[in-house]
Amino acid sequence: MTKSKPKILSVKTVANSRLFKTEEVKLEFANGEKVAFERLCGSGAVMVIAISETDMFLIREYAVGVERYLLGFVKGRLEQGEAIEQGANREIQEEIGFAANKLEFIRTVAVAPGYTNFHTHIVIASELYPSRISGDEPEELEVIKVPLSDIDQLLDHPEVIESRSLLGIYLLKDWLAKKD
Amino acid sequence: MTKSKPKILSVKTVANSRLFKTEEVKLEFANGEKVAFERLCGSGAVMVIAISETDMFLIREYAVGVERYLLGFVKGRLEQGEAIEQGANREIQEEIGFAANKLEFIRTVAVAPGYTNFHTHIVIASELYPSRISGDEPEELEVIKVPLSDIDQLLDHPEVIESRSLLGIYLLKDWLAKKD
Repeated sequence: MTKSKPKILSVKTVANSRLFKTEEVKLEFANGEKVAFERLCGSGAVMVIAISETDMFLIREYAVGVERYLLGFVKGRLEQGEAIEQGANREIQEEIGFAANKLEFIRTVAVAPGYTNFHTHIVIASELYPSRISGDEPEELEVIKVPLSDIDQLLDHPEVIESRSLLGIYLLKDWLAKKD
Repeated sequence: MTKSKPKILSVKTVANSRLFKTEEVKLEFANGEKVAFERLCGSGAVMVIAISETDMFLIREYAVGVERYLLGFVKGRLEQGEAIEQGANREIQEEIGFAANKLEFIRTVAVAPGYTNFHTHIVIASELYPSRISGDEPEELEVIKVPLSDIDQLLDHPEVIESRSLLGIYLLKDWLAKKD
């Protein structure tokens, strides 16, 4: 059933802003069909599910795309040359004021692979201890502690609407179930 | 705990391509901090989890963002003025050649709300019957039928990497569990 991949005929930058670079990719499919697609150049991010024995630590943060405050897990871009676990440990120190003795890589997900190579590495951080690094947030982040026993209610929280956050809740549920 | 929302000082288009429009948004946070963010203008899409009594119908499609074929649920943009269920029923007819007698809206998720208002409505389509509409795909889509009993293995499939697809699998698991 393996089809041969489309041939990339050309890649050209068609728009550029401070944050987003758009490329036009001309492809030729195995059937001879030629199509031009646009895609955004993305980078790698981490999403960190930080938990103690009894609680998970979430962030309530303003999301300019939807013009609302949303509740979700710690997230941030990886810095140049930074390993996944290292970036995860930096982000939780910046956003919730804890570092972790245990950082477990769960999986890497693509955000919208039809449009961008942007991807997110999901990490569960546990065995936390207080440690703060100052981040670059425009206002102090609200840290919300949610009991692990309330994890199912979190799926219905009106401020939890992002697919990665919702997926993170399910991945944590699986992880907790395996641990028991 | 409710913080007042940042005030939007200005919104300006800073880049434009065929597919993506980038805006710069100047904000003033409650603490007086002024920041300029960039965001992409998005639209609404549907993701349709199409199932029979025994199987789910997935699509294997080339994703230009990651330059790979990926396995996922039927997805597509809503057309102007189209209701969610209507768009869902059109997309499954285009992509898998079935229409549904039952279309159940599950939830709406944001894709990357820090960067865009792009959102996806998730629908479970059942009671399928053959009906085809021609779509606009550059090559014939590969329809992959997966037994519902293999749903857990699907979480580990190397071509299932998108957060919305993975979330869809978990949402379907919950839906099937409630149905029983």
